[in-house]
Amino acid sequence: MFCSRNEANMKIGILGMGQVGATIASKVLALGHEVKIGSRSANNEAAAAWAANGGARASHGSFADAAGIAELLFLCAPGEVALAVLDAAGGANLEGKTLVDVSNPLQFRKGAPPTLFVGNDDSLGERIQRAHPKLKVVKTLNTVNCSVMVDPTRVPHEHTMFLCGDDAEAKSTVSGLLHAFGWRDLIDLGDISNARATEALLPLWVRLWGVLQTGDFNLKVVR
Amino acid sequence: MFCSRNEANMKIGILGMGQVGATIASKVLALGHEVKIGSRSANNEAAAAWAANGGARASHGSFADAAGIAELLFLCAPGEVALAVLDAAGGANLEGKTLVDVSNPLQFRKGAPPTLFVGNDDSLGERIQRAHPKLKVVKTLNTVNCSVMVDPTRVPHEHTMFLCGDDAEAKSTVSGLLHAFGWRDLIDLGDISNARATEALLPLWVRLWGVLQTGDFNLKVVR
Repeated sequence: MFCSRNEANMKIGILGMGQVGATIASKVLALGHEVKIGSRSANNEAAAAWAANGGARASHGSFADAAGIAELLFLCAPGEVALAVLDAAGGANLEGKTLVDVSNPLQFRKGAPPTLFVGNDDSLGERIQRAHPKLKVVKTLNTVNCSVMVDPTRVPHEHTMFLCGDDAEAKSTVSGLLHAFGWRDLIDLGDISNARATEALLPLWVRLWGVLQTGDFNLKVVR
Repeated sequence: MFCSRNEANMKIGILGMGQVGATIASKVLALGHEVKIGSRSANNEAAAAWAANGGARASHGSFADAAGIAELLFLCAPGEVALAVLDAAGGANLEGKTLVDVSNPLQFRKGAPPTLFVGNDDSLGERIQRAHPKLKVVKTLNTVNCSVMVDPTRVPHEHTMFLCGDDAEAKSTVSGLLHAFGWRDLIDLGDISNARATEALLPLWVRLWGVLQTGDFNLKVVR
């Protein structure tokens, strides 16, 4: 169902230098890709330290710097600033690029557990796609924590990763990356509107995290 | 974690004579319980036929008739009429009873796939609990189709059933019934507000049903 090619030596931009961004940046660097981390400030200390340790294929800069050089981008910012980060990256820098959207529309201001600020008949994935029609948005990885994103073997036995998006070629490229991360059971739900379904898993995820007292879990679609 | 007692010879009322109600009614009857199906009309033909074939422990009547005799009730009506069905059953008939809420707040009027008419910071399970504070609402089984509800072996390998509710004893009784249905991996998410998480699985369920072309699937929490 999925092509498993790993296009080594892609130019990959990472938008956001939080824990998610740093984890994904290190993984794709280890896989042989050229990686630029983009931050709000081009002088982000954590990003500079990461790049200094990363060798010749690792660099850092502003959101626009990262988007400018990238063929493929990971959106690793919190959901509440996702659209602002893409605005800062610059519309022209995004045209024709593949964006792996791992963000979730979680809002924490209303107490715990967090609720969603968009859902049911819309999604953050769709908002991003509507705001940047020439960006090829692929929603995936948003249903697990970042350690599991890049190392699914942290959870024993096979489990499932969903993806969705409007562009078949972009989904094929992202599927190849997911395969390189170690993912084997991928389910393509269809177009980007299916982000409504996977973002809606977060209310369950946060509760299971509370019950299980670990983030090393995931769902398997048993069939 | 869960008591696995099967309290045979409970008096069980089934609210709703659709496919879900009929499937659950036949299962609990086969397990040895006394079962009355309640319908809007006490003369529902399908319920009468079911009762005629069901032997001495099977009967039918109005929603109020079923609620009146029952120690434990299954709410098997469509989500959009769930509260109206409980009103018809009669508040006094519900006091102190355990209600297994298998309904989902799906609305079909806005096209396919269906959306939810309540969610995120509220749920149908909570609405039912608020409307009937002396009812012991246990939300479960709403995340699979009715064939799988009563026969989890239709899906190969182990998979997970969630439950939640405010009353520990009611959850223990319902866990015993679920065990008798064949469920082995139960996760108690906590109080009834966790219905927000399991009802939110429906957008994924309907999409997976479209992709997999079968209702014989479920989620396993791999950990």
